[in-house]
Amino acid sequence: MDVRSTDKLIDPFSVDIDIDEGIMKRATNHLVRKASDMRGHYADQAALERLIAEKADPLHYEVFEVPVPEKEGHLMYCISTLQPGQVGEECFMTKGHYHAVAATAEIYLCLRGQGYMAMKTADGRWSAEPMSRGRMVYVPPHWAHRSINTGGEPLISFCVYPGQAGHNYGDIEQEGFPKRVFLRAERVVIE
Amino acid sequence: MDVRSTDKLIDPFSVDIDIDEGIMKRATNHLVRKASDMRGHYADQAALERLIAEKADPLHYEVFEVPVPEKEGHLMYCISTLQPGQVGEECFMTKGHYHAVAATAEIYLCLRGQGYMAMKTADGRWSAEPMSRGRMVYVPPHWAHRSINTGGEPLISFCVYPGQAGHNYGDIEQEGFPKRVFLRAERVVIE
Repeated sequence: MDVRSTDKLIDPFSVDIDIDEGIMKRATNHLVRKASDMRGHYADQAALERLIAEKADPLHYEVFEVPVPEKEGHLMYCISTLQPGQVGEECFMTKGHYHAVAATAEIYLCLRGQGYMAMKTADGRWSAEPMSRGRMVYVPPHWAHRSINTGGEPLISFCVYPGQAGHNYGDIEQEGFPKRVFLRAERVVIE
Repeated sequence: MDVRSTDKLIDPFSVDIDIDEGIMKRATNHLVRKASDMRGHYADQAALERLIAEKADPLHYEVFEVPVPEKEGHLMYCISTLQPGQVGEECFMTKGHYHAVAATAEIYLCLRGQGYMAMKTADGRWSAEPMSRGRMVYVPPHWAHRSINTGGEPLISFCVYPGQAGHNYGDIEQEGFPKRVFLRAERVVIE
């Protein structure tokens, strides 16, 4: 047996997830992004400011997790919940990120809602996988990724990534994603 | 950005999972264990031989996966399906394994059925977490783990583990698990 780690053993535990509603019960970590946290991400910045003003800076997305050690060999997991809506015609989305250790993958198992996982690499490749209940998207190492909600209810996924992965929001914020997703006359348009 | 890996980029992809029935559609890898593969694992070996003879060596458990590179940074994932039944009074179970790289965790999200995840460490610690739909069990690094079906339908979980983890069946086969799970007069007994 290869016992490389000298880390202290942690005990097994379990977490209850409502896999129909997409709710992690008793999550201890709760990240909240409001509309005002999304400044600079949408094409129509004036529409975002109107949304913030008129709807009292509404909830945009949340991440629920029960923490484990952020170390290689461990697995981080969470429930990601992205609200439905548009900024102008552009569908609500997450900021998107690379992993700080870029060579790490992430798995998203969609539990509820409709949308896309948009992905890109630093050298300009782009991809979008449709998401709906039961669709598992594999985000390979080195791909930045962002969820986009094109439906009328929250887009909810169960996510797993390596303990050492971390988050890098800065690089993708500078690069941007090459395509955006809009809802026009009830049709999804990617451009 | 930390780009340690020189591996070639792989493209994103997605897989459809029926998260009510626990079926991975178009899985390309399919591991099958029949009753005869379980010789040496149950307390009542004569009962296992009768089962093999009388029921034509029935299906015991299956693992469905779509393969990704078995390397650090990637994530392996699968659907594990353990049939219901008993060998004598002992509930059907998987062989159980450590990871070849022992310092790696595994996440099991139960989609269907009733049972336990039994776990142990090389230094003799033991734990069992109940499993039912929506229960996520965190198997920490260094814990051998085995699923046990105490219900009347298949016990089905969605599993994720680090790409480099691998499997080590030999050590736990020699050590054995310190407790077994029986069904007696319709009651679950752990001893």
